[in-house]
Amino acid sequence: MAYFENVGKIQFEGKGSDNPFAYKHYNPQEKVLGKTMEEHLRFAVAYWHTFTGTGADPFGVGTAIRSWDKFDGMDRAKARVEANFEFLEKTGIDYYCFHDVDIAPEGDTLQETHKNLDTIVAMLKEFQKSTGKKLLWNTANMFTNPRYVFGAATTCNADVYAHAAAQVKKMLEVGKELGAENYVFWGGREGYETLLNTDMALELDNLARFYHMAIEYAKEIGFNAQFLIEPKPKEPTKHQYDFDAATTIAFLQKYGLKDHFKLNLEANHATLAGHTFEHELRVAAINDMLGSIDANQGDLLLGWDTDEFPTDLYSVTLTMYEILKAGGFKTGGINFDAKVRRGSFEPEDLFLAHIAGVDTFAWGLKAAAKIIEERVLDSVIEERYASFREGIGKEIVEGKATLKSLEAYALQNKPIVNRSGRQERIKLVLNEIIYSV
Amino acid sequence: MAYFENVGKIQFEGKGSDNPFAYKHYNPQEKVLGKTMEEHLRFAVAYWHTFTGTGADPFGVGTAIRSWDKFDGMDRAKARVEANFEFLEKTGIDYYCFHDVDIAPEGDTLQETHKNLDTIVAMLKEFQKSTGKKLLWNTANMFTNPRYVFGAATTCNADVYAHAAAQVKKMLEVGKELGAENYVFWGGREGYETLLNTDMALELDNLARFYHMAIEYAKEIGFNAQFLIEPKPKEPTKHQYDFDAATTIAFLQKYGLKDHFKLNLEANHATLAGHTFEHELRVAAINDMLGSIDANQGDLLLGWDTDEFPTDLYSVTLTMYEILKAGGFKTGGINFDAKVRRGSFEPEDLFLAHIAGVDTFAWGLKAAAKIIEERVLDSVIEERYASFREGIGKEIVEGKATLKSLEAYALQNKPIVNRSGRQERIKLVLNEIIYSV
Amino acid sequence: MAYFENVGKIQFEGKGSDNPFAYKHYNPQEKVLGKTMEEHLRFAVAYWHTFTGTGADPFGVGTAIRSWDKFDGMDRAKARVEANFEFLEKTGIDYYCFHDVDIAPEGDTLQETHKNLDTIVAMLKEFQKSTGKKLLWNTANMFTNPRYVFGAATTCNADVYAHAAAQVKKMLEVGKELGAENYVFWGGREGYETLLNTDMALELDNLARFYHMAIEYAKEIGFNAQFLIEPKPKEPTKHQYDFDAATTIAFLQKYGLKDHFKLNLEANHATLAGHTFEHELRVAAINDMLGSIDANQGDLLLGWDTDEFPTDLYSVTLTMYEILKAGGFKTGGINFDAKVRRGSFEPEDLFLAHIAGVDTFAWGLKAAAKIIEERVLDSVIEERYASFREGIGKEIVEGKATLKSLEAYALQNKPIVNRSGRQERIKLVLNEIIYSV
Amino acid sequence: MAYFENVGKIQFEGKGSDNPFAYKHYNPQEKVLGKTMEEHLRFAVAYWHTFTGTGADPFGVGTAIRSWDKFDGMDRAKARVEANFEFLEKTGIDYYCFHDVDIAPEGDTLQETHKNLDTIVAMLKEFQKSTGKKLLWNTANMFTNPRYVFGAATTCNADVYAHAAAQVKKMLEVGKELGAENYVFWGGREGYETLLNTDMALELDNLARFYHMAIEYAKEIGFNAQFLIEPKPKEPTKHQYDFDAATTIAFLQKYGLKDHFKLNLEANHATLAGHTFEHELRVAAINDMLGSIDANQGDLLLGWDTDEFPTDLYSVTLTMYEILKAGGFKTGGINFDAKVRRGSFEPEDLFLAHIAGVDTFAWGLKAAAKIIEERVLDSVIEERYASFREGIGKEIVEGKATLKSLEAYALQNKPIVNRSGRQERIKLVLNEIIYSV
Ligand SMILES: [Co+2]
Ligand SMILES: [Co+2]
Ligand SMILES: [Co+2]
Ligand SMILES: [Co+2]
Ligand SMILES: [Co+2]
Ligand SMILES: [Co+2]
Ligand SMILES: [Co+2]
Ligand SMILES: [Co+2]
Repeated sequence: MAYFENVGKIQFEGKGSDNPFAYKHYNPQEKVLGKTMEEHLRFAVAYWHTFTGTGADPFGVGTAIRSWDKFDGMDRAKARVEANFEFLEKTGIDYYCFHDVDIAPEGDTLQETHKNLDTIVAMLKEFQKSTGKKLLWNTANMFTNPRYVFGAATTCNADVYAHAAAQVKKMLEVGKELGAENYVFWGGREGYETLLNTDMALELDNLARFYHMAIEYAKEIGFNAQFLIEPKPKEPTKHQYDFDAATTIAFLQKYGLKDHFKLNLEANHATLAGHTFEHELRVAAINDMLGSIDANQGDLLLGWDTDEFPTDLYSVTLTMYEILKAGGFKTGGINFDAKVRRGSFEPEDLFLAHIAGVDTFAWGLKAAAKIIEERVLDSVIEERYASFREGIGKEIVEGKATLKSLEAYALQNKPIVNRSGRQERIKLVLNEIIYSV
Repeated sequence: MAYFENVGKIQFEGKGSDNPFAYKHYNPQEKVLGKTMEEHLRFAVAYWHTFTGTGADPFGVGTAIRSWDKFDGMDRAKARVEANFEFLEKTGIDYYCFHDVDIAPEGDTLQETHKNLDTIVAMLKEFQKSTGKKLLWNTANMFTNPRYVFGAATTCNADVYAHAAAQVKKMLEVGKELGAENYVFWGGREGYETLLNTDMALELDNLARFYHMAIEYAKEIGFNAQFLIEPKPKEPTKHQYDFDAATTIAFLQKYGLKDHFKLNLEANHATLAGHTFEHELRVAAINDMLGSIDANQGDLLLGWDTDEFPTDLYSVTLTMYEILKAGGFKTGGINFDAKVRRGSFEPEDLFLAHIAGVDTFAWGLKAAAKIIEERVLDSVIEERYASFREGIGKEIVEGKATLKSLEAYALQNKPIVNRSGRQERIKLVLNEIIYSV
Repeated sequence: MAYFENVGKIQFEGKGSDNPFAYKHYNPQEKVLGKTMEEHLRFAVAYWHTFTGTGADPFGVGTAIRSWDKFDGMDRAKARVEANFEFLEKTGIDYYCFHDVDIAPEGDTLQETHKNLDTIVAMLKEFQKSTGKKLLWNTANMFTNPRYVFGAATTCNADVYAHAAAQVKKMLEVGKELGAENYVFWGGREGYETLLNTDMALELDNLARFYHMAIEYAKEIGFNAQFLIEPKPKEPTKHQYDFDAATTIAFLQKYGLKDHFKLNLEANHATLAGHTFEHELRVAAINDMLGSIDANQGDLLLGWDTDEFPTDLYSVTLTMYEILKAGGFKTGGINFDAKVRRGSFEPEDLFLAHIAGVDTFAWGLKAAAKIIEERVLDSVIEERYASFREGIGKEIVEGKATLKSLEAYALQNKPIVNRSGRQERIKLVLNEIIYSV
Repeated sequence: MAYFENVGKIQFEGKGSDNPFAYKHYNPQEKVLGKTMEEHLRFAVAYWHTFTGTGADPFGVGTAIRSWDKFDGMDRAKARVEANFEFLEKTGIDYYCFHDVDIAPEGDTLQETHKNLDTIVAMLKEFQKSTGKKLLWNTANMFTNPRYVFGAATTCNADVYAHAAAQVKKMLEVGKELGAENYVFWGGREGYETLLNTDMALELDNLARFYHMAIEYAKEIGFNAQFLIEPKPKEPTKHQYDFDAATTIAFLQKYGLKDHFKLNLEANHATLAGHTFEHELRVAAINDMLGSIDANQGDLLLGWDTDEFPTDLYSVTLTMYEILKAGGFKTGGINFDAKVRRGSFEPEDLFLAHIAGVDTFAWGLKAAAKIIEERVLDSVIEERYASFREGIGKEIVEGKATLKSLEAYALQNKPIVNRSGRQERIKLVLNEIIYSV
């Protein structure tokens, strides 16, 4: 059956088109910097927002009109699988991502939950084979069930920790079964509500132990996906341990885990942490930790994760710039961790919103490529830092300088001259570039 | 001469007193948990706010009435030294802290600046000897002078980097000369305004090189003070590299610097980064990086560093709790990096504000000691995490568990029961404790 | 039956008590400034948080253990009524507040919904009579149901507007039936998500029309309760029309509604709008618009409405100070619009949390009374503004001055002298006052 | 003499140009919606940022290289006048704006200050005549001088109030002399630091008295400029009385001042208050209070007023959309209340930054005009609110409905159907529109 009968295959029609159900920028086979757009962008649909999201918020129940909601239990789970592949087919998006609880309902027992998962995983595998669609990453939801009220790998209750371990074990097996290219950890409740009742040291030690066990088990079963951690500073908990890229890297370094992980960075999580998204991408890149992204955008005047579809060309262009400069995605991709607004409750909005995200990223890719090809920013950087490529600057960079040698230099140096950083000019140039592609 | 002729020595008069110029809580020789208050608290006066601050803000010039302002140049610098020791005497505070430019005016040349410093340092040394007052820490101001417009150790201009090195070299020598117990790095402009013109990777590499040089030179001259880094997320720059404790630790780990540094944490910087101060203290403590604190408080409804004198008993009690639990200060102390409000421009306000800070910290110390003595929070923690001291929890903590063993446990386990975290109750108890000491 | 069988009547035991289920500060018949604590404080339980709240958040389902959850539909609704009065009895709180959907489930038709309400309202009335408990205020929930996705009185759909009108009509009748002392409007979705699809002018005009109709109908049926508007700046919508006290007053003035309303101010809403709670209270007071309060507290490091139970003595003392200075509550009271944390899921937490709130407010009342009796702040104000009680200042206040007369005065005036505002000192005094009661 | 000898007249060269010192979008005589760009945009240079700004911030002294800084006192003031008109000439900007202290140094007495002003005003008048440049607005700076530490019209010191009155009197005379089209009040210190020492009621009453005096005096001298108030929520003070548009309107209504004022809205002030700029513009427009704008942009991840030059096409397009929908500027215009970054310290940056602002606004004007001409948003609104133009909706709008008639309608109505708000689609269309002009 068709779950989206009013919408056909979304085609590339180019800039002139005024068909809302067409791409104006995303032309999958078009080459940019030597690779096709499709190869660059590796889009994925987030199963949770698209197939289990309801539009509920803390002050209201769901609004979304979804044709699979006429079913219940495992029937609804199966309908969602069908809807997922229909959606991937129609949008031309190649990947999808899910948590365990997104694809199959939890049973009354862990055994039953596993059985539900097995049924759906078999179905997903079949669909993947027949459609060629792929799993970008999977993960375990360890924040929705009440048992995780105080966290999973950082809970105060050892039984909960064990249950979480069982969930992750199962999902590593599922990931292997479905050929997932990555496996994600997002610690929604791995943090605390108040330090007054929290043993932070024990919790972090336990978290590290959890990761070591996961690494060991993945190795044992030959699941070679890239492990990713997704930082977020807060929400649902008051304070989450994986606050941002730097905090997560500090943790991984401390516990000897850095080589086993990369980061899955989300735009809205960056801004909640007080950073631009490009900042987080840069921090990851220079630490060789850039894995994948959750593409969305927040509202900087609101203090919670709004997970809006990305339409801001400034942010998306700089996102693609950071990714291209870092060598592009390896196993990672662009997962739309974005939900249609509560007021965009019609099924068509799922398409319109993904088209908005896809086209904005295609546009941003072209703009970023132009910035690179024309060396717009590279030439700025090259000129600004020229003094570190010769003379005293070269000595500094090569590790030959000491405080004494530098003082000696400074004492005899002529008055220092700086040159303007030219921010306003560069921002105007950025406008021109974005709108010229 | 006397710079504060209207104020005499501030004495401890106890709770009953209504003398504004007396301590009601800070009784230096009173024992708390086996040490005197004075030994615990190690207060320091910040030279910059107290002796060079003017009350200017971005929309207005200075308002402060200061008797040393009738002097100029080196005369004023000398008057400030006298005022500093008079103030330390009268408040009974044992330590002070300064940047190079606070104590002596910059000259037209580096040579002249050094000479000015030498004159004042000799004077400070003399005063220290005669009064017994001590230098908690010194530092180099590498953010005020226009040359540092793009940073010092992270500048794009090698000449600026060399100048910064010369400043730090000098201040390490000064620290040694004056017996400083710590040396602080606060990277006010070590960050960026926009990534568009910034080579973050080079800047961070250079910053690490800078620190390595400083370590090497301190060793060379036998200056054994504890090196401290003071994180701050932003302001003056859009984004500062030492964003918070975790970010700073990530940096130090990456560059092999962690063993050479501890952190100087500031309350207002914590909240600007989106953390409580106790969070930052805890992060430092569990990484063995808690060095010293800059005591102040911010206004959480304002988005900039207000550096108010600390009067919030909740925050100060939890601050002292973290410090006591971490074993108390070693070389560090409580530096009042706080300024009187622009509207508190009379010289007496300097005293009243320090009294507010000192008394609040003495009060917080007593409250924190009581929390520890009565095991108010320890018993909560002990009970909450009990499951990690036996059975499967013990196996987890001892590193004997695997995903497989945990899944086996979970599969046969009975339904999970969590216990309430009791936040509301604990907060009420905290009220009672604070007001019972 | 008993819904809280583990908890008995909460008694006043005074400061020395360490019984968690007792009041240490709230002594209902104790006199403060000539009235009993009970008369001053007029506490109310919020039906929604206490009897329908589940502990769910955007990332997790409910955790709360509630004995009435073994029932369903109207049976559960009835059980909640019984639980409500048991809770009021045991806590000694005299008032409660509700939305229509809190007390009775919505039916498939408006007719059925009305019928459900009628059943429960009859039961509430009976209980009120037998227990002496009273309804502080009621209101209509016009934000949870999907029909209100775009607002109620500011919807873009006239059918929705009509439905909202029917709900309010019914609730005015219910308020009359139960002797509600106030009727509240909180416009949770009266605002917009994006201006791009919003006709703000029409929406505000319609909102004003809605209020006029409500006034007219209340008059028609002889329902004399005080109408209250509760401002909130955002959440759930991006921008709410009743942003804060001043914005709401501007609206009421423009549409000739000011005389018919007062404000119901909530602490957490104040801080979300960038104000302290005492600011909002003062703004209401000087505009003769202070009606009632929703007592809770937010987390200023989080950007959403956390609705925590109030335990901050600074904020609560200043809250009570503003209320006392404004003459105390008339029809209004202190409604605990506060929810136990998701981790405080045991039924006992409902008591412990209310005890925390009640005792904090009793404490704050005593502290505020002392500030008034000792004229701690009054004497500061009197002295600071003395210049407006004589000479040129008196002329200004009496409306006799002109720019010309003031220029003439200024031209001949001697140099201006200001006096310190003494903030740091006043804050320390506040600590002492709170401690001493 | 020439103050900007390296820069010639900025010409329109169109989109193809890569000359940094040329306009690509601003073509003054080009017609848009029936008026020239110049008539629509009415750009003004802010004297303070451009001619007196130094690049100082709270952590550093000035960096700006300005050729007039070789002069001092009145000589520098005169040089700035010349530089101002050279800059207006070269940029083709027609208007400028100033505070009294921007154009002439304060003297030791009010008399001397007035004299200094008279000298410079005569010079400005001469220059205006010879160049055709005009004064958009002037104002009195009542926040920089220490006397205004507690405000001007809301001070606690009547002498200060009188001095402020003298300053405003003078500036009204200056405005008349120079033909200012508007007169602005920005209450930088009209607010408070803490309520603990503040008599808000008296301060607001005094503020209203001040405005009434100013209105009266302007009338007396025949100065017919539009009076404008510029809201800002905070900074420098903790809380400013003119928090935002709605708050200011509430104040003006209460004191019978509304007919005498319009608003001067600033983008960065809007975001500091938690609003988008378009929100503030809309609020002003529907209250017939839209006067003029201070064009700049803030950094939403920073908590202070950064006053950046506007380059964000999203915000500027929506700004111009609101202005065009409100009928365009009457006496108002677009004042660049924006400063070059501290790192953009070369004189050329003043040009590059203004070009960035001018071109972005010209671009935004074209985009906004297209949105209007193609009814992109009008058609959305028309369709969404259609139900209020017939049937029950029409009755509501016409004031014929009552709660009873609406309940009757609702009781017989069929199930309610809402339609998607289509946000994601609209945002993508906005991208296309901005790109296409
Ligand atoms: Co995500
Ligand atoms: Co998110
Ligand atoms: Co500091
Ligand atoms: Co600070
Ligand atoms: Co409320
Ligand atoms: Co609330
Ligand atoms: Co402005
Ligand atoms: Co501004």
